[in-house]
Amino acid sequence: MKILTLGGWLMASSAWLPVAHGELNLMPQPAHVVSGQGKLRIDQSFRIALPGYREPRLEHAAARLIEHLESKTGMPLSRDLSADAAGATLEISTAAASSPVQKLGEDESYRLDVSSGHARLTASNPLGILRGMETFLQLVEADKETFAVPALQIEDRPRFPWRGLMLDVARHWMPADVVRRNLEAMAALKLNVLHWHLSDDQGFRVESRRLPKLHEMGSDGHYYTQQQIREIIEFARDRGIRVVPEFDMPGHTTAWFVGHPELASAPGPYSIERKWGIFDPAMDPTRDEVYRFLDAFIGEMAGLFPDDYFHIGGDEVNGKQWDRNPAIQAFMREHGLKDNVALQAYFNTRLQPIVTAHGKKVIGWDEVFAPTLPKDIVVQSWRGQKSLADAARLGYMGILSAGYYLDLMHSAEFHYSVDPAEKESASLTAEQKARILGGEACMWSEYVTPENIDMRIWPRAAAIAERFWSPQEVKDVASMYRRLAAASRDLEWRGARHASSHHLMLERLADGHPAGPLATLSDVVEPVKEYSREEARQYTSFTPLNRLVDATRPESDVARDFGNLVDRVLAAASDAASSRDQLRRRLTQWRDNHAALAPELESSFLLQELIPVSQNLSALGSAGLEALDYLAARHKPDSVWVEKQQALLDEAKKSHAELLLMIAPHVEKLVHAAAHR
Amino acid sequence: MKILTLGGWLMASSAWLPVAHGELNLMPQPAHVVSGQGKLRIDQSFRIALPGYREPRLEHAAARLIEHLESKTGMPLSRDLSADAAGATLEISTAAASSPVQKLGEDESYRLDVSSGHARLTASNPLGILRGMETFLQLVEADKETFAVPALQIEDRPRFPWRGLMLDVARHWMPADVVRRNLEAMAALKLNVLHWHLSDDQGFRVESRRLPKLHEMGSDGHYYTQQQIREIIEFARDRGIRVVPEFDMPGHTTAWFVGHPELASAPGPYSIERKWGIFDPAMDPTRDEVYRFLDAFIGEMAGLFPDDYFHIGGDEVNGKQWDRNPAIQAFMREHGLKDNVALQAYFNTRLQPIVTAHGKKVIGWDEVFAPTLPKDIVVQSWRGQKSLADAARLGYMGILSAGYYLDLMHSAEFHYSVDPAEKESASLTAEQKARILGGEACMWSEYVTPENIDMRIWPRAAAIAERFWSPQEVKDVASMYRRLAAASRDLEWRGARHASSHHLMLERLADGHPAGPLATLSDVVEPVKEYSREEARQYTSFTPLNRLVDATRPESDVARDFGNLVDRVLAAASDAASSRDQLRRRLTQWRDNHAALAPELESSFLLQELIPVSQNLSALGSAGLEALDYLAARHKPDSVWVEKQQALLDEAKKSHAELLLMIAPHVEKLVHAAAHR
Repeated sequence: MKILTLGGWLMASSAWLPVAHGELNLMPQPAHVVSGQGKLRIDQSFRIALPGYREPRLEHAAARLIEHLESKTGMPLSRDLSADAAGATLEISTAAASSPVQKLGEDESYRLDVSSGHARLTASNPLGILRGMETFLQLVEADKETFAVPALQIEDRPRFPWRGLMLDVARHWMPADVVRRNLEAMAALKLNVLHWHLSDDQGFRVESRRLPKLHEMGSDGHYYTQQQIREIIEFARDRGIRVVPEFDMPGHTTAWFVGHPELASAPGPYSIERKWGIFDPAMDPTRDEVYRFLDAFIGEMAGLFPDDYFHIGGDEVNGKQWDRNPAIQAFMREHGLKDNVALQAYFNTRLQPIVTAHGKKVIGWDEVFAPTLPKDIVVQSWRGQKSLADAARLGYMGILSAGYYLDLMHSAEFHYSVDPAEKESASLTAEQKARILGGEACMWSEYVTPENIDMRIWPRAAAIAERFWSPQEVKDVASMYRRLAAASRDLEWRGARHASSHHLMLERLADGHPAGPLATLSDVVEPVKEYSREEARQYTSFTPLNRLVDATRPESDVARDFGNLVDRVLAAASDAASSRDQLRRRLTQWRDNHAALAPELESSFLLQELIPVSQNLSALGSAGLEALDYLAARHKPDSVWVEKQQALLDEAKKSHAELLLMIAPHVEKLVHAAAHR
Repeated sequence: MKILTLGGWLMASSAWLPVAHGELNLMPQPAHVVSGQGKLRIDQSFRIALPGYREPRLEHAAARLIEHLESKTGMPLSRDLSADAAGATLEISTAAASSPVQKLGEDESYRLDVSSGHARLTASNPLGILRGMETFLQLVEADKETFAVPALQIEDRPRFPWRGLMLDVARHWMPADVVRRNLEAMAALKLNVLHWHLSDDQGFRVESRRLPKLHEMGSDGHYYTQQQIREIIEFARDRGIRVVPEFDMPGHTTAWFVGHPELASAPGPYSIERKWGIFDPAMDPTRDEVYRFLDAFIGEMAGLFPDDYFHIGGDEVNGKQWDRNPAIQAFMREHGLKDNVALQAYFNTRLQPIVTAHGKKVIGWDEVFAPTLPKDIVVQSWRGQKSLADAARLGYMGILSAGYYLDLMHSAEFHYSVDPAEKESASLTAEQKARILGGEACMWSEYVTPENIDMRIWPRAAAIAERFWSPQEVKDVASMYRRLAAASRDLEWRGARHASSHHLMLERLADGHPAGPLATLSDVVEPVKEYSREEARQYTSFTPLNRLVDATRPESDVARDFGNLVDRVLAAASDAASSRDQLRRRLTQWRDNHAALAPELESSFLLQELIPVSQNLSALGSAGLEALDYLAARHKPDSVWVEKQQALLDEAKKSHAELLLMIAPHVEKLVHAAAHR
């Protein structure tokens, strides 16, 4: 057997070679892999055996694995599950049950042994089996004779025990189907926590039987029934995913106050918030009736959500209602609460025992942290890694979300480079580091609908999932992108709609015209980053999200590939000649695209805003081709040409229609190279 | 107002102009359209009012229309339905209820008046409203300022009252979701009958509570529960679609005999048939116990399926079990039944009163027809139009399916050219013609799975739907194809998966390689026609349908477009120069494709069979380019060249991997033009 270390894989990889057969399309990368001789055929004789411990969850998982193999291969397979390993292709041995309610930190390790005759997956409990099944499925590939899995041994376990995805279903409502298909995708990437952001100023999304005005008046009719919640929790549990509900308090609570203005710090009436941002309404921390209400509410929700943790939110209280309320001011003076931070800490010290009394542990955003709280709370850091490190030093557990906000439209590489144990956490002791439980990718929903949310989550969240699962040294970006492409294809088979929605939305924009030229433009743009959309126009929950900025992908693979080509050409790499040909083809396509696209852009009110972007793309194509001509002729351009190109580049790098032309910096490199030859 | 006759539209259309704005993307074409001045804006103020008669089905339909408008525009819309027409964008006025169980021949007409301020849809009952809503939805388009519907008046009614799609769910099992999404697509095209082929040799697909061995032993566990059946019937009724069940008898009944061998004409045991074709097992028409069984069974099914019609099948009894059974032979002699046709007629004369006693009318395939049967039966003609005409002359009603078999992989144009009232029926009297109720597209499922069935039905069935709905003179093929492209896009928004499955299946075949070159090949091939797949290899119900022949579309738009370009060039049409440039680009792409695709084809056992197809495509590209060179040079090629090209063309026109290279005949035209200049 040949030892294939992770380093070996990564070194063998190169962004500009085709995927080498033999490189494994695994995401996340397992902790240890040893490659063997030969392959295990996967054909219609495929059978799973479940000797040893058996429970319905394992049987469901085996049935799903067979279905997913059918999807991946297009072969009908037998549904029979035997208890007898003899004759089975994949033997699955589980030692014992896992906890009835999945616990933080439960063993998720597994071992997978594949020889040319047989595969064996073993784990101490069903969670490890679930993780190992995903690895097995990713290994299936067609070769010259058959579908097959390469012979190998994998020993795998997660680096962090808390690997989450936060879904905001308050700002834009996400029906149960959207949650389910994203849970399925999470399972494929070994994520294990759905953090369900269920209430905010713009909506209260859970049926409360004790306090029905919450959902009846706070949701526009868009809420999950308790039955739906139970079904989703069961669906998640079947896939080894915990469901942590968040009810954000004491701010972000306008939707609660529509039915219950008495909880607020200023008199009502309130209506559901339609804008995005930070708003004044906040619960009144000074009145006992507020805590009695929360006791009743949390008691009901604690019965509905079985997880040990209960997320109390706690972020972004601007304190304005508190400042303006004389009774609250008097209370603060009376109790020696010197500022609003102290008042919120007071709120949390009242709230935490209520949550605990109902059998739950508290998790909250950064702002909930105060050294007066018990040590079993979890701090979710969204403002930076420092607060995570600070809390760990003081003995508190934490998870990282700063750097993992999917709504900010950063690249997979950006998120992949963020590590919960690095930067401010790098200097922690081992004991302190162990308090860093992992992290969560966050999908805030101001600018997503059920139509495009999958496109905003996947495939980028898969890179974050690898960061949370794989060893810290797994960092090769080129390898990540290559495996991410495979993971992305697999995800569509699992029901995620990131690719199909993109195509449908582009076709809608093209409105009967050929979609090709619009796709060419879409392929090289990205939505503006961070919070720039807020500055571009006044969005509300009613604003249609049907423009190119909503339909295009968050990350341009074409621009990244183009940038790599430019680098190879300018570095005079060994394949520079073929790269130069590719560059010319690309640039020519872009130069000519506006002529094909212009009539379409002019004909639709949804597309007119793209005219300057399309013109700039065309101009960048010309500029790049001219720069290549100068470089080929070894002839330095005159300063008039250089200045003209620089003016064009400066214009092309600006956002238009909330879009950025991602090839502009790469064309700029070509222009500068020509100018400074 | 300008009268826009249908002929006016059709004359204005041309295959080689872009879709003219102003041409309406309606499919099926309405009976009468008058265009008006201006447009009705469709924006977020859109509201539906339902004054007059109101029932839950209308409210569901209005809610769905709003959802579909949201999908089509990407705008969130209000869900409020008012009874007050004032201020509504679309006023929907229904005179009265339709029949509780939808009847054959019920009024489906509607009138749609759109002005720049308001739209009004009126109909005598909810069926007409359902049809008119689909028309309204198809009219919505983006212009320079807004989404809008053009001002117009439409008076519309169907040409035929029976406009069906037959789904075979026996040979390959189709889960309830597949049926539902195809019902949704049918509704979009104004089809009104789902003919559900529920039993055959390869499976018995309905739960029978009285006779549970039917589904328990005859289905591999793949059957619809009675609850699912009821839900699907309700789903169909909500969309104005009748559901006619078919239980094929006395042949095609192997799956019944697994649990009930006593019904057969030869002793058992029987097992579920796994092959395709015509098999010997048939019910024994001579024994009373068979009719007692059928009485119990049909009684149960008559309660489950509310439609007036009950399909008894009756096709393809080969009679071999009858020939070999001495008791049956004795019975025939005793009763003067001279041959097996007479014996089947005897079976039908016994079966028909049983069906009638349970409140149903009989429909059956061609072979059930005998002039001894009562006049209210319906004959479904699958062997040709003659039997339909013959039956009509004798006073029997009929529907046409010959010419509408989607599984035979004919083009939309082929199906579109078949008219139930033409050919042998053209000479019928008006009274006889009125007995021709319409037709059904048939989707037999030997070569489809839930994965690719949508691709086999849509969009081609939309052309058939137009044949059944629109006036007989609506026949312009270029107009049909242009509108079919729009209908196809709309269908994906409605949930049909013909486009997305195609992409996913191609990506699976590409298995991580770029899908582009494989798509280029796929775009110019079609599966072999008629029953050629049966000759190519021995298929069974276990055979994977995961090759290019299963993933590619039934009809190559690219080849059709290419053929039109060739014709324009050879006819020296006014745009011949630009057509010639397009031809050269296409041919160059094809010539160069094999070089890009070959490594991929060689690497996968699923793709190796495509190597000769891909080589032929490349050679055709070269041949076409050379022919263009000769034509441009006005230089006649020598006979060696001509013979070499002819040999290539003869080879390229042969099927390989069950695929046909559809550009071959068009390249042949270029070669011949060069040779005979």
